[in-house]
Amino acid sequence: MYASQCPCRDVLDLLANKWAALAIGALEDGPLRFGELQRRLQGISPKVLTQTLRRLEDNGFVDREIFPAVPLHVEYSLTAIGRSVSKPLGALRTWVETHLDQLSA
Amino acid sequence: MYASQCPCRDVLDLLANKWAALAIGALEDGPLRFGELQRRLQGISPKVLTQTLRRLEDNGFVDREIFPAVPLHVEYSLTAIGRSVSKPLGALRTWVETHLDQLSA
Repeated sequence: MYASQCPCRDVLDLLANKWAALAIGALEDGPLRFGELQRRLQGISPKVLTQTLRRLEDNGFVDREIFPAVPLHVEYSLTAIGRSVSKPLGALRTWVETHLDQLSA
Repeated sequence: MYASQCPCRDVLDLLANKWAALAIGALEDGPLRFGELQRRLQGISPKVLTQTLRRLEDNGFVDREIFPAVPLHVEYSLTAIGRSVSKPLGALRTWVETHLDQLSA
């Protein structure tokens, strides 16, 4: 992990990112549409959410399914490895929430 | 965590960062000088390492001790809460290392 050429660096770079961690957490309960994700991740811009989801999809953590209904809609869901990484990411989020008072003291 | 005003967002933003995660990991074994940290975190620039350490120090994760020896030197070490957060961060690093082959398949 500490060698600069280690490919794990790129993965850590992708995951060790606030919006990626929050997006994966939001998808833990099941598939969501773009608008629902945007509402859950209060404050995220459509552009950053699009980039975050595309990076997560490109790296195999998120699936994107297009439903040819009228109107057409798209749903995002965690892949198996996305669900797997949601555990350590969830533990980091929980740590932050449970230590917040010590940090802002 | 999902409310945009939640202060935990800033902490997650600080921690959910490749260099912060690697710096905290490198300090798990004990205090290190700047140069030693820079060697461990291969590829990090002095500027980014300085910024990362300052942010970690400002948020209470890292202590900076100045030794008035000749030549003067500075050592960085984890605070108690820094050691506490190194566990979920270590779990995330370990997850990345152990799933790397599945990701690059």
